[in-house]
Amino acid sequence: MSFLHLSVVIMVKESRVDVLIIGAGPAGLMCANALAGAGVDFRIIDNRPVGVAAGQADGIQPRTIEVLQSYGLAEPLLKDGAQMHLCAFYNPGPNGGIERTGRAADVTAPTARYPFKITIGQAAIEALFVDSLKSQGVTVDRPIVPSSLEITQDSEELLDPSSYPVKVVLDHILCSDTAPEQEIVHAKFVVGADGAHSWVRKTLGISMDGEQTDYIWGVIDFIPDTDFPDIRNRCAIHSSNGSCMIIPREGDKVRFYLQMSDKDVMDPETGRVDKYKASAEKLIEVASKTFYPYTVNQPKEVDWCSIYIIGQRVASRFSAHERVFIAGDACHTHSPKAGQGMNASMNDTHNLAWKLAQVLRGRADISLLKTYELERQKYAQDLIDFDREFSALFSGKPRTSDNEEGVTHEQFLRAFQASGGFSSGIGVHYMSSAIVDTTHQGCAPDIIIGQRMLPQMFVRAADARPIEIHDILPADTRFKLLLFVGLLTSEQLTKVRRLAEELQLPTSFLQKYDYPAQGKAQSMFDVISITAGHKDDVNFLDLPPMFRTHWSKVLIDDTDVTGRLGGGAYPRFGIDEKEITMVVVRPDGYVGMIAPSTALESMDKYFGSFLKGKTLNLEA
Amino acid sequence: MSFLHLSVVIMVKESRVDVLIIGAGPAGLMCANALAGAGVDFRIIDNRPVGVAAGQADGIQPRTIEVLQSYGLAEPLLKDGAQMHLCAFYNPGPNGGIERTGRAADVTAPTARYPFKITIGQAAIEALFVDSLKSQGVTVDRPIVPSSLEITQDSEELLDPSSYPVKVVLDHILCSDTAPEQEIVHAKFVVGADGAHSWVRKTLGISMDGEQTDYIWGVIDFIPDTDFPDIRNRCAIHSSNGSCMIIPREGDKVRFYLQMSDKDVMDPETGRVDKYKASAEKLIEVASKTFYPYTVNQPKEVDWCSIYIIGQRVASRFSAHERVFIAGDACHTHSPKAGQGMNASMNDTHNLAWKLAQVLRGRADISLLKTYELERQKYAQDLIDFDREFSALFSGKPRTSDNEEGVTHEQFLRAFQASGGFSSGIGVHYMSSAIVDTTHQGCAPDIIIGQRMLPQMFVRAADARPIEIHDILPADTRFKLLLFVGLLTSEQLTKVRRLAEELQLPTSFLQKYDYPAQGKAQSMFDVISITAGHKDDVNFLDLPPMFRTHWSKVLIDDTDVTGRLGGGAYPRFGIDEKEITMVVVRPDGYVGMIAPSTALESMDKYFGSFLKGKTLNLEA
Repeated sequence: MSFLHLSVVIMVKESRVDVLIIGAGPAGLMCANALAGAGVDFRIIDNRPVGVAAGQADGIQPRTIEVLQSYGLAEPLLKDGAQMHLCAFYNPGPNGGIERTGRAADVTAPTARYPFKITIGQAAIEALFVDSLKSQGVTVDRPIVPSSLEITQDSEELLDPSSYPVKVVLDHILCSDTAPEQEIVHAKFVVGADGAHSWVRKTLGISMDGEQTDYIWGVIDFIPDTDFPDIRNRCAIHSSNGSCMIIPREGDKVRFYLQMSDKDVMDPETGRVDKYKASAEKLIEVASKTFYPYTVNQPKEVDWCSIYIIGQRVASRFSAHERVFIAGDACHTHSPKAGQGMNASMNDTHNLAWKLAQVLRGRADISLLKTYELERQKYAQDLIDFDREFSALFSGKPRTSDNEEGVTHEQFLRAFQASGGFSSGIGVHYMSSAIVDTTHQGCAPDIIIGQRMLPQMFVRAADARPIEIHDILPADTRFKLLLFVGLLTSEQLTKVRRLAEELQLPTSFLQKYDYPAQGKAQSMFDVISITAGHKDDVNFLDLPPMFRTHWSKVLIDDTDVTGRLGGGAYPRFGIDEKEITMVVVRPDGYVGMIAPSTALESMDKYFGSFLKGKTLNLEA
Repeated sequence: MSFLHLSVVIMVKESRVDVLIIGAGPAGLMCANALAGAGVDFRIIDNRPVGVAAGQADGIQPRTIEVLQSYGLAEPLLKDGAQMHLCAFYNPGPNGGIERTGRAADVTAPTARYPFKITIGQAAIEALFVDSLKSQGVTVDRPIVPSSLEITQDSEELLDPSSYPVKVVLDHILCSDTAPEQEIVHAKFVVGADGAHSWVRKTLGISMDGEQTDYIWGVIDFIPDTDFPDIRNRCAIHSSNGSCMIIPREGDKVRFYLQMSDKDVMDPETGRVDKYKASAEKLIEVASKTFYPYTVNQPKEVDWCSIYIIGQRVASRFSAHERVFIAGDACHTHSPKAGQGMNASMNDTHNLAWKLAQVLRGRADISLLKTYELERQKYAQDLIDFDREFSALFSGKPRTSDNEEGVTHEQFLRAFQASGGFSSGIGVHYMSSAIVDTTHQGCAPDIIIGQRMLPQMFVRAADARPIEIHDILPADTRFKLLLFVGLLTSEQLTKVRRLAEELQLPTSFLQKYDYPAQGKAQSMFDVISITAGHKDDVNFLDLPPMFRTHWSKVLIDDTDVTGRLGGGAYPRFGIDEKEITMVVVRPDGYVGMIAPSTALESMDKYFGSFLKGKTLNLEA
């Protein structure tokens, strides 16, 4: 009976991977794409058989467009998405209906490279990542459900970046009527990007802190038939019949967020929200009242609709032992209307991915990973605070003659404009840490250390082509060293050559922490020189070879041939043309450190606090 | 013996096609792509088994970028090509070597949307079209050699657009050791885009008029190793050892055009140019002398090199009976250095394709095709005249103390800058004809009738998105009617409504010549309304529905939310905000007609001179 004997030996597949990403929504996919670009060994799994088809999040903030651009992924969105440039405000007028109280720029962050938000379905955003991953030979493994997760208690193992301290059991769902196939995965790191009901978070026992509020909102995507003149602008409508936010979408589609009353959505018997009570027809009916005297006709077709109760919460921890991380909705949930959720989610893993890559390569100390929670938890909390305030204003009753306690247009507009940093994502400001050193902020006072590098046009010295600095700061895991070498007088050139000599010493960070022999993809630094002066005079060959590793690496702070683009960066940044100023841009685009050429030792110290030098490697 | 009997019945394949394009270089491919987009039945054949691999033409003028953009094809070139923004001038210095006498903007046409030229291999340009054709299900039939071409003598048949008056015999080359397979093609129209040695031209007995000059030039594509500081700019170098033009190319590659002396390239026995004497090594040797005191080292690898003698000639006719056309090098040849040949070639068929499409659809009279020769032959002749002058200046000896008759830097710079319209392609100006009517030039004096529509940023009324007008003037065979409706006061709105009523009359050109029932692709007009005023105030719904067929069709002459883009078009164009001005942009982007709303009858007359009205169709 050898057959029977064989059938009880169940072979459980076991595997190893550097990073296991659980969840293929925007946070997980951003993480996967960044790790793929960095050449990291990873897997991404998801419990759904396919990605989202319609609805869900849809707004991309100006900062997120910049981030996607740093991965080469912004163009399809710029081409296919709708763009919100204006926001229109409507309030109750004297005749019982709404009237426009004003229009204002939708993005109030003056340094935004893209002065608008993009809206497009979450499906299109996920497709962007999925296609990019596919071109790199990676697909999402699905449907797979994780069933257990254990982290070693051995502190030595936890500190050894080459160990596999996390054990995850995965159930491969083959079809509905057979038992799932099990797999044991040993991972160096796990990223739980598995949404608001995160299994990873629950398994780690991490609590969500915050409150559930009482505002109930309906959301509907459709092609409207209306005489409302701002139907293609973002609109904040406060009416006596409830509030509405309009989000124009790709093509002719729009999204309405509609404030619902209890009677619209409550089951009178149970006193609980009954999702089925909020039909598309019902939502359009609510809209009709809100829009009066404008008409909104019942559409023939509806793309998607749903209702939700605003919940604003943030996780008490973002990681367990810096071995398992949670990201995205798994660690913070927001009101959708402020357009935050998906943006914060993608930016979580944008922050995490380069750190994981450098630790896995053995170039950075594992302690670097502590900065993920440090940076992203504070941001999430700030965001929640902002969101709560904004949502309350938006969900509150408008001021009318009957309701003198209501929210005025001016109150709302003030909050709207003050919140520009948040609603654009441009205001993200990471506090001092191992990777944010503000010691020498004074030598470039207007490039804020801890914020993202400002966009700025320059002209390339070799061919006078206008270059946006963001376009040469890709998210490729390398630190960008912007060398503001000043006006190249013979005196200044002497200083520049001296700096080059100092940076060639083996003790200099540029030698100690770089690995150029292992190819561009694995190198740690990219040096970009920026001169003052005029494009008719500057000769890029005057710079020492190490400051022009390629002819494309030298820029001039001057206008292009038309005089329309570029120029003025030295005064704008507060940088002295007679000094040499070094600006360190982190792999994620945030400014980590600034120093004058006379403070090289502080630069060495900065990088030494989280990178592993070559000497250390040799000793190991 | 029925087998033997069968074997002598040779079945010659016979086929019919609306347009047969002979030659798949830039002119033929541009034609094919435009016809494919228009849904025309055509075939494109070429006698080479594959397209060009290296070398050949490589410069794309600003106007050609605009044209490619109107087919949705500019982006890959903008991304992959090198861009020439600056031109540097070098002349003999006092020490026997060259020195820089100045740098200037390479493109001196102030209205160019793209203020630079793009350089990229001809192979990449052809690939652009081949890929676009492929996505539309079209491939180039190759290798096929035409062996005879006959046009009917029957004048009635020639005038009937539905007839097939051209018979072409094609030899399909299967392999080198079997006889080619013959095919007889009956075509309504034939486009001969078969190069400088055009078989079509010779078969039609069309002569090339012009002269062969004595300047001999070498051309070489390679990655240079040099200390020359302008190696990434376009350079015009006049040295006592000969002239050189540098064209920076994609990646790190450059092209040198080098003036050769007789002894470098002549066979002393025959007194004729010996191509084999001009090796890559020889060309670099010549460059080394020209560049002194800068060094140009022998490269390890050379992409491509060749020598040529400048020939500037233009064909005496561009068509036979408006049934067979020649285009591109088949009808004009130029000195390559002015970067004209390929640009003029693509623009020939850009001019022809929409005319063929409208005639084949039965919407335009066959006489429309006469405007092809009228417009393109004059341009070719003007170009040849410019080219001859420019080449003479460039090939001439520079002015030095030894040679006081030589060309000075100032003479050359003046010619360079005066020629901006030609060297950018922006200056193309078609004279009055059935499709260029200058009667009402006065109501928009700064939009020149016969020139391409000026690029201009507007903001879209519905959503304040900045829109470059060129981006909504695709080469889709439709005429664009730009309605400058002015400042929408109540008085102006009355005028606007009256105009809408007049344009709704069946006698109006907009009703008589349009075919909206047959779908957007086959319609004749696209109406775009442009208001004056401020984006905070304009309500696009105020316009009559026929002036806003979609919410995206109404623009405002205002700045975008940042204040950086758009605005000022009414004064720039010389258009009165209190009048209504209609600007007709032809399908190829050139302004055909301008009229005030009070001169609708002249607009009816303009379109009536070359389009076929619905009434005519019903009578037929």
